[in-house]
Amino acid sequence: MDLINVDSVSDVNELEKLIASRKPGFCLPQPFYTDPGIFDLDLQKVWMRYWLYAGHTSQLPEQDSYFLFRLRAESVVVLRDENGEVRAHANVCTHRGSCILTEPSGRAKNLVCPYHQWVFRRDGSLRAAKLAESAMDPRRSGLVPDPGKAFDASLYGLKSVHCRVLEGFIFLCFAPDPPSFDRLVDIYKPHLEMYKIADTKIAFSKTYRVASNWKLIGENARECYHCGVGHPEYCRVIPGSNLLYSMEPFERLRDKKLEEWAAKGIPTYGVNFEDANDWVYCLRYPYSEGFVTESLDGEQVAPLLGHRQDPDVGVFSIVQYPDFWLDVNPDHLTHFVLRPVSATETDVEMTWLVRKDAVEGKDYEVDKVIAVWRTTGEQDWRLCADNQLGVNSRYYQPGPHTPVEAGPEQFDSWYINELLKP
Amino acid sequence: MDLINVDSVSDVNELEKLIASRKPGFCLPQPFYTDPGIFDLDLQKVWMRYWLYAGHTSQLPEQDSYFLFRLRAESVVVLRDENGEVRAHANVCTHRGSCILTEPSGRAKNLVCPYHQWVFRRDGSLRAAKLAESAMDPRRSGLVPDPGKAFDASLYGLKSVHCRVLEGFIFLCFAPDPPSFDRLVDIYKPHLEMYKIADTKIAFSKTYRVASNWKLIGENARECYHCGVGHPEYCRVIPGSNLLYSMEPFERLRDKKLEEWAAKGIPTYGVNFEDANDWVYCLRYPYSEGFVTESLDGEQVAPLLGHRQDPDVGVFSIVQYPDFWLDVNPDHLTHFVLRPVSATETDVEMTWLVRKDAVEGKDYEVDKVIAVWRTTGEQDWRLCADNQLGVNSRYYQPGPHTPVEAGPEQFDSWYINELLKP
Amino acid sequence: MDLINVDSVSDVNELEKLIASRKPGFCLPQPFYTDPGIFDLDLQKVWMRYWLYAGHTSQLPEQDSYFLFRLRAESVVVLRDENGEVRAHANVCTHRGSCILTEPSGRAKNLVCPYHQWVFRRDGSLRAAKLAESAMDPRRSGLVPDPGKAFDASLYGLKSVHCRVLEGFIFLCFAPDPPSFDRLVDIYKPHLEMYKIADTKIAFSKTYRVASNWKLIGENARECYHCGVGHPEYCRVIPGSNLLYSMEPFERLRDKKLEEWAAKGIPTYGVNFEDANDWVYCLRYPYSEGFVTESLDGEQVAPLLGHRQDPDVGVFSIVQYPDFWLDVNPDHLTHFVLRPVSATETDVEMTWLVRKDAVEGKDYEVDKVIAVWRTTGEQDWRLCADNQLGVNSRYYQPGPHTPVEAGPEQFDSWYINELLKP
Repeated sequence: MDLINVDSVSDVNELEKLIASRKPGFCLPQPFYTDPGIFDLDLQKVWMRYWLYAGHTSQLPEQDSYFLFRLRAESVVVLRDENGEVRAHANVCTHRGSCILTEPSGRAKNLVCPYHQWVFRRDGSLRAAKLAESAMDPRRSGLVPDPGKAFDASLYGLKSVHCRVLEGFIFLCFAPDPPSFDRLVDIYKPHLEMYKIADTKIAFSKTYRVASNWKLIGENARECYHCGVGHPEYCRVIPGSNLLYSMEPFERLRDKKLEEWAAKGIPTYGVNFEDANDWVYCLRYPYSEGFVTESLDGEQVAPLLGHRQDPDVGVFSIVQYPDFWLDVNPDHLTHFVLRPVSATETDVEMTWLVRKDAVEGKDYEVDKVIAVWRTTGEQDWRLCADNQLGVNSRYYQPGPHTPVEAGPEQFDSWYINELLKP
Repeated sequence: MDLINVDSVSDVNELEKLIASRKPGFCLPQPFYTDPGIFDLDLQKVWMRYWLYAGHTSQLPEQDSYFLFRLRAESVVVLRDENGEVRAHANVCTHRGSCILTEPSGRAKNLVCPYHQWVFRRDGSLRAAKLAESAMDPRRSGLVPDPGKAFDASLYGLKSVHCRVLEGFIFLCFAPDPPSFDRLVDIYKPHLEMYKIADTKIAFSKTYRVASNWKLIGENARECYHCGVGHPEYCRVIPGSNLLYSMEPFERLRDKKLEEWAAKGIPTYGVNFEDANDWVYCLRYPYSEGFVTESLDGEQVAPLLGHRQDPDVGVFSIVQYPDFWLDVNPDHLTHFVLRPVSATETDVEMTWLVRKDAVEGKDYEVDKVIAVWRTTGEQDWRLCADNQLGVNSRYYQPGPHTPVEAGPEQFDSWYINELLKP
Repeated sequence: MDLINVDSVSDVNELEKLIASRKPGFCLPQPFYTDPGIFDLDLQKVWMRYWLYAGHTSQLPEQDSYFLFRLRAESVVVLRDENGEVRAHANVCTHRGSCILTEPSGRAKNLVCPYHQWVFRRDGSLRAAKLAESAMDPRRSGLVPDPGKAFDASLYGLKSVHCRVLEGFIFLCFAPDPPSFDRLVDIYKPHLEMYKIADTKIAFSKTYRVASNWKLIGENARECYHCGVGHPEYCRVIPGSNLLYSMEPFERLRDKKLEEWAAKGIPTYGVNFEDANDWVYCLRYPYSEGFVTESLDGEQVAPLLGHRQDPDVGVFSIVQYPDFWLDVNPDHLTHFVLRPVSATETDVEMTWLVRKDAVEGKDYEVDKVIAVWRTTGEQDWRLCADNQLGVNSRYYQPGPHTPVEAGPEQFDSWYINELLKP
């Protein structure tokens, strides 16, 4: 990967000028998509402050299971403590800084550093630091200051990271003072609880290294201007996504379904992006006629989630900045998660979940479950990589957002807003 | 690739001091060959200002053919417009900046952006921007400012790049105000027209990634001090290239041939590098006795170019800074073109052309056509890479140019001159 | 490799603050292990000032043998001059800076630059610079200044690097004014001479690219806190290396052996690291009961070195900052040498030597000679790479050195001391 046409923005004034140069109604000036200094700023101002999707409780099947969450240089151990509570700790020994768990997932009763065997409890506290407390042999104590001073284990617990669970989804936040998680619960829970998402399992997951700044992917995922030609499969499933056609039939269908669902007691409220402060969105909407889920032929591809007998609940979608996009179908879920790698690279992890008790080959076939979104995702990652290539050029100038690009416009405005926060 | 011993030159004063530290008669101080900041400066001050060789009209066989010219982050579409005129446009959509054409060459009636299908004419103007002009659904218009304001397509044509054709060779220039192309026509055309270069085709082309700053390659190609030992094959073909031998026999031969050619009406004038302002050079000179072209055994390797029956026209050579080196033989052409990649890497594209109507296997064999210059080029790329390795060291100091290195001396002086221009 | 969480330290004040932020008794703040600017500083302040291990005289078997020493961009030719003296010269031609010898080792009567065939004698002086002294053809002299002025070959000898040999070990130093080498001779020679190390040969050598800052490897090699669990094989061989056990039995054994060795006239003195100024250490100590060398089963694995009949001399160890760790066994030697590659990468070359007249397959088997240290080394490189991973995190904070980590504490203090020198 080459970083091109880019000077590292080391100067605050230069940054202020750059932020001021962003014209509302247009996409962002080049350095926001290419500059390594801006990329570091994005990590600080956005990624280290927001709730990030970490994984699913089905990834912690045993009392002593763990998995690692990774974002750039950060590695976080996600596990259950002695009380079964999901916790997250920096995977960094407080002694000489070794990473403690090296496998991406596994089981660990205690967290034992492989270097000098310091032992941490699952709540992060230091349980034993062999030879730290007393010099076995005073001749060895050498230059170490105050060797006689008692070692205070309470100073050397693992650093913890905020961690919350919502219907089986595990989120974490690096900020000392995270945004309200309860608000997310209030928004999502009434919609989600009928699906019993905690009782699902991962049917398939794949990570794509996309040669694109994370914000180009964010913008892409906030508009359907490109769907008509870019996503023929998706457009067959989701009415109203081909913007070349009149919206009227879709709106009539949607209004009818919302009434039906409301009558059945299914939540129909949505949360929209109103202004540049908003970072969470959800919506329930219908499939095209003849479709009961996001599958190529519209047929159900896995057993219904939760206790429902009736598949007719449409699709429930969540967008949560900066990293989480979710579609809940009656029979399976699919989400993708962004992980910035560099100014011009992003890992995108796509995951599909089905009922925990569903049997592969009998109750579902992976290919059918993933077909629509694997295709749609791969179409998008290609579009985003091509977008990056053009944005790298010295001929790139931010172009205008058309009336159907209110989504990227809101995304860009939200992002600029975050940079302006102290 | 490792950039070594190098501090990025961010400070103008530091740059001025560095430029001042260059001693005439010596090669350049280390940072000019190794520093990424200087490399960016080279792109701005040299590569973005000069005419660059882009390709050959035989690469645009159809009315709707195109090919891409690439230099670092820049991608330029080279094509014919409706009037058959060769044009060059930045391959960057004026909407959200996607690159438009992604294949290195092909056919395209219009330039359609793969992202949102904005359609550009071959002259670069915006023909259609679907959904941009009016909001189909006002509810979608969201945050976009002035949605009612009419969309002005004339603001969003592709950025054009200067483009000129000379005897089939296509050159482009990124500068708003390029150097005189007519001067190049005046210099080259009388020499070139008898070869009918527009009626040739590419017989072979290969790009080498050379681990060397582009200026080390430029210096190398401006002297034959290294030829005697470095290029035994070339020295057999070109008399006077082994500087260890007396120049007298070569000079007698040359003077005799120049007289003969003049008598036959063949142009014999040359354009020499006189001082640090010169960036173009051409010369006609004879082969060794018994050679009629640049082939290993001196035999003709392809049908004669143009309408001539008589192969005896010697070789006509062009050097055009910063990127173009050409030898025209009576039966084939060969040129190499530089494309800077980083401070310590350059792509060198070597190309050989023969008559368009020549049939491979019958009229010519590729191996014989390319033998002398493939060998000579590969010898040079190795020498240049070894040169870079030494220049990276903290023990490198610019050494003296000997009397036979007036070429690199002029090249270095020209380069320093360009940096000093505002 | 990703450099993460790191701002290049370009500012002197910032550096002073950073150095001041190092708390004695704790390992180093993050940027010392991750920052490219600090890494460049390490090269200048440490690596360019100290004696570095270059190789062994057995690598120069013939009068005209040479080998290359490489450190980052530096390439140094190590050879014997006409008097048989080992010399070291920068492998950089004083003409246009080409590297002269391109193969890692070989034979060369003179050093002939492959570019323009300037010829250097083995003492570094310029013997011939073809065409440099006089213009063969005044028309070629072009822009080169003062073409009439005589060329002074004495100005263009190769740059030399300090080079010394000690019992077959070749060390070099880039500093104009190196630390006292005689002091090293005084310390090592009485211990080493009985082994006749000049009469050994390399039995095996392997270079590991370790994803770790060189100082993490240095710290690792200065403590045995990690040995008990990390190095079971080594702990079986070397008593006292498992710090979980009482040191008493080891100390009794050591005292007894030191007395026995002294009685036999074997040197028993050691040189310890006393304070932050020390950079050399040596010690003689016993094997575990039943072991006569560093082999898995304790059995001798090669013919005894030197003229001794009695293997009972223990192991003699050297640590020499910043790059050299040596264990001399009665039948073989092993050493590892560090070569910094970047802030987060280091090459570690491990080498084993046996008697020159020993025959592989008959007198020794490579696998048995290298078993203990190959295993131990590979265990360490893994620990060091894991250490780096954790240190890259924003959650890393320098942790406390325990009483058994006086070694790393001294190493870190020495290093900080070096940075503070002008």
